[in-house]
Amino acid sequence: MGIVVQKYGGSSVADAEAIKRVARRIVETKKAGHDVVVAVSAMGDSTDELLDLAGAVSPQPPARELDMLLTAGERISMALVAMAISDLGYSARSFTGSQAGVITDSVHGKAKIIDVTPGRIESAIADGHIVIVAGFQGVSQDTKEITTLGRGGTDTTAVALAAALKADVCEIYTDVDGVYTADPRIVKSARKLDRVTYEEMLELAACGAKILHLRCVEYARRYNIPIHVRSSFSTHEGTVVAGSIEDPTEGESGMEAAIIAGVAHDRSEAKITVVGVPDKVGEAARIFIALADAQINLDMIVQNVSVESTNLTDISFTLPRTDGQTALAALEQIKDEVGYESLLYNDKIGKVSLIGAGMRSHPGVSAKFFSSIAEAGVNLGMISTSEIRISVVVNEDDVDAAVSAAHTAFDLDDTEVEAVVYGGTGR
Amino acid sequence: MGIVVQKYGGSSVADAEAIKRVARRIVETKKAGHDVVVAVSAMGDSTDELLDLAGAVSPQPPARELDMLLTAGERISMALVAMAISDLGYSARSFTGSQAGVITDSVHGKAKIIDVTPGRIESAIADGHIVIVAGFQGVSQDTKEITTLGRGGTDTTAVALAAALKADVCEIYTDVDGVYTADPRIVKSARKLDRVTYEEMLELAACGAKILHLRCVEYARRYNIPIHVRSSFSTHEGTVVAGSIEDPTEGESGMEAAIIAGVAHDRSEAKITVVGVPDKVGEAARIFIALADAQINLDMIVQNVSVESTNLTDISFTLPRTDGQTALAALEQIKDEVGYESLLYNDKIGKVSLIGAGMRSHPGVSAKFFSSIAEAGVNLGMISTSEIRISVVVNEDDVDAAVSAAHTAFDLDDTEVEAVVYGGTGR
Repeated sequence: MGIVVQKYGGSSVADAEAIKRVARRIVETKKAGHDVVVAVSAMGDSTDELLDLAGAVSPQPPARELDMLLTAGERISMALVAMAISDLGYSARSFTGSQAGVITDSVHGKAKIIDVTPGRIESAIADGHIVIVAGFQGVSQDTKEITTLGRGGTDTTAVALAAALKADVCEIYTDVDGVYTADPRIVKSARKLDRVTYEEMLELAACGAKILHLRCVEYARRYNIPIHVRSSFSTHEGTVVAGSIEDPTEGESGMEAAIIAGVAHDRSEAKITVVGVPDKVGEAARIFIALADAQINLDMIVQNVSVESTNLTDISFTLPRTDGQTALAALEQIKDEVGYESLLYNDKIGKVSLIGAGMRSHPGVSAKFFSSIAEAGVNLGMISTSEIRISVVVNEDDVDAAVSAAHTAFDLDDTEVEAVVYGGTGR
Repeated sequence: MGIVVQKYGGSSVADAEAIKRVARRIVETKKAGHDVVVAVSAMGDSTDELLDLAGAVSPQPPARELDMLLTAGERISMALVAMAISDLGYSARSFTGSQAGVITDSVHGKAKIIDVTPGRIESAIADGHIVIVAGFQGVSQDTKEITTLGRGGTDTTAVALAAALKADVCEIYTDVDGVYTADPRIVKSARKLDRVTYEEMLELAACGAKILHLRCVEYARRYNIPIHVRSSFSTHEGTVVAGSIEDPTEGESGMEAAIIAGVAHDRSEAKITVVGVPDKVGEAARIFIALADAQINLDMIVQNVSVESTNLTDISFTLPRTDGQTALAALEQIKDEVGYESLLYNDKIGKVSLIGAGMRSHPGVSAKFFSSIAEAGVNLGMISTSEIRISVVVNEDDVDAAVSAAHTAFDLDDTEVEAVVYGGTGR
């Protein structure tokens, strides 16, 4: 009968009825004999409303004050959840990130958790209270300023609390049943995974599966905290993220495990091609330094050898669409210096990725993946691979066909189809 | 060029435009060479919206969680004010009550400030920042819990900050031009007071003038902080509350001062008469002990001697209408014990008060007050007096006539009539 940490996102606490439902579930867990610590996000669209207010008073609000503003959102939801629990006859205490001991660095808007000192939480647990903690927020170690953790922050809060409190499990409640072999809106026969390793979940998250954020999975992996992803609208078991591909006895990724965990896709990227770059040492580096200086994270990178032996090469890369214009401007600035010919920009692309720990020991996975997509009549663009992932760029309109084809080719289709909602998580 | 503390209420920061206007005024004060510390309330109706949410999840939310919830309101407004100042090219730092060092007792919902430790504020001032502090809130000394100060809390925050920072003045911005000789909605010719003593302001506040809350004036008097009440919608000088009737050289309440500061009225009270109380030692005490045990504050109390010498007396008192039913229930419980005959309840009353330090040295003020009201055809009920105040109870419908009659009788009417808005302050 240890500690269970639960996380409820914005859609799970969107209004009074939703908050009451969450309170009942929390109380059920307490009744089952567990100590319960809950991390909550701000209600529904309330963060967007606060951002609108900020935009109405200042086009570029200071980051410190924006964090002060946004942290009001979780303060409201956590107090309401505590009230709803109290109304069920159980005692609850809510704590801000600062009160809960969530210590971060000083980077407003995307602070990193560097320590959790949960003294007040432990006291409250010892006194028999259910503990509600504001997700997404903390206090900076040096300056004692209020910080926010950026996207996926509440997931990360939950996992960090679970690690600090040595919890048995961190349950992430969301609006889907768990992690699926593909987006069920695209592949009707997508199957819910019972278990997935940290590494596979990291690749799924990095490749567009919006169910868990990368940082939260990284944190759980580092501290070996099992994450149970499940729906706040049902009592079904969801997906347990645990175990490592490095340790087959702990995870279930040995000989018995499935070769492929799933097919992920991502429509949020764009592709830039720098055409006619002189093929000299250092030219490519200058391009990537310019992009790094502009704070742009690149994903896939491909350099083509020019077939006509003109000593010119093309360099292509993908990046978040939201950074597209910034990247083009940064590249224009170094045009004369680098001496490239032109820039091509394409934001009508999609990335389709096959992920599975088993592919390490199964040659032929790439060939099967490529041919399944080709047979669906889809042209492949850029390709990149990791130990447990293969990604290809296709036309945006071909994403669905490519995902479905790969899903079927690797026998991932379920015979029983469940109706689920597959959406992005908030923060 | 010392420190100026300013307070802006909910209506002054009701929306983005209002917040920008407040920011401009704050920056003007900074430009004039002052260090500026600002206490803000929650935006417009946002507190009521939070209370509605609380009511929707729990009919009786725990006081601790209600404070946690409501304090989100000032967190939002203070961050927005800081952003708007930043947008004008000045640097501002917002602080919660806890961060600002507003230390209170542990009574959630109506905590009292017991100390202010403004270390962070002083550092921010030294660094050249404008400081914005969340009004209405603090942190409890013993348990480090978030508390709220109850009605008028932001006024009190402002005065407490002014005292702790040894500010030159505490400016209370509101939606009226200052303190008037009567409610201008009733008396069109009411005149704005340039100065009023703490004692007169205390009596005005206690008698229904909603412009400043009693606690805030008490605090200012104790620490001798001048309060400047003025409109956030104009640059006119308002009313300065300063000086004591005990110290005529400091205030302007000596021979030169006006005899009467103003006429206040209050429609929030009800009257209870306990009929036929045995006229024995201790019976009245039992009644008042029962009411005190029910946490009810009484205002005026009158005991009538029974004309028929039946050895029975009637005891009447006034109290907040909101406490009426609680008081009746408490009295019913001791009916047999005390042996009174019946209870009368009247919530259609109003109280009209004449306030002025000068009445101490001017006999005949009472007679003139009573006769002016009688000449207006209004019946007087209960009467109570203090050193600088006379109050009478009249029928609720007669309040306007009584106020106007007294205002005219004491030559308070202004010849130039300004259009003003006279409303209640928020918190």
